[in-house]
Amino acid sequence: MQSTLSIPVVLSKITETYSPSLVATINEECDIKVARTKGGFIWHSHPDTDEFFYVLSGLLTIEIEGKEGREDVVLHQGDTFTVPKGVRHRPVGDAEIMMIERVDVVNTGDSGISEFTREVKDARAVA
Amino acid sequence: MQSTLSIPVVLSKITETYSPSLVATINEECDIKVARTKGGFIWHSHPDTDEFFYVLSGLLTIEIEGKEGREDVVLHQGDTFTVPKGVRHRPVGDAEIMMIERVDVVNTGDSGISEFTREVKDARAVA
Repeated sequence: MQSTLSIPVVLSKITETYSPSLVATINEECDIKVARTKGGFIWHSHPDTDEFFYVLSGLLTIEIEGKEGREDVVLHQGDTFTVPKGVRHRPVGDAEIMMIERVDVVNTGDSGISEFTREVKDARAVA
Repeated sequence: MQSTLSIPVVLSKITETYSPSLVATINEECDIKVARTKGGFIWHSHPDTDEFFYVLSGLLTIEIEGKEGREDVVLHQGDTFTVPKGVRHRPVGDAEIMMIERVDVVNTGDSGISEFTREVKDARAVA
């Protein structure tokens, strides 16, 4: 059986921002990841998955391209927010976050492969 | 668009233990819930879903009926653990927890409806 995994320990081993570490996969359909953010990411959307954000520490603004224009969302420690599938967004801020989304999502979504793209690291493999 | 939801605020409104509050649903397939625990729950399994536990505060032991007998798992604050689908388990302890599992799961699983069964409260409706 899989062993336990400590979120603070996983975060302490992260050396790169906007580079997600996989904590668990549920039912082969839902990934639970953590990451550190610093500054701004790039604008992108995920056509095939909602994206749940939970701020573990720090402050994260999710800039969002809403139907009526920009609808930015400010998340303090303990706050959660779900970006619906297909909605263009851009995280900005210095934070430690948990993300929940469909399996095998690329962090840069529909913006394509770029210098921001990172392969997901499986935190369970090095725990 | 859905507004933000604070996990500490949701937890502060919970008055009953082992009574899950729904924080978000992702892709109509994955529920994110929080709950308070106190003492022991009942032995049960979820035949159709893995169950991810994340201890936000406190201490939770998940007693598990493993293939080789009991394989209890002790979770401190910040620890995570996934109970695979079909595995009989029993949470014990005083903690605040996040759970991630398939939508529409009944908290008492295959043990049936009992005095431990609670309808999930949608925390978004009262935020």
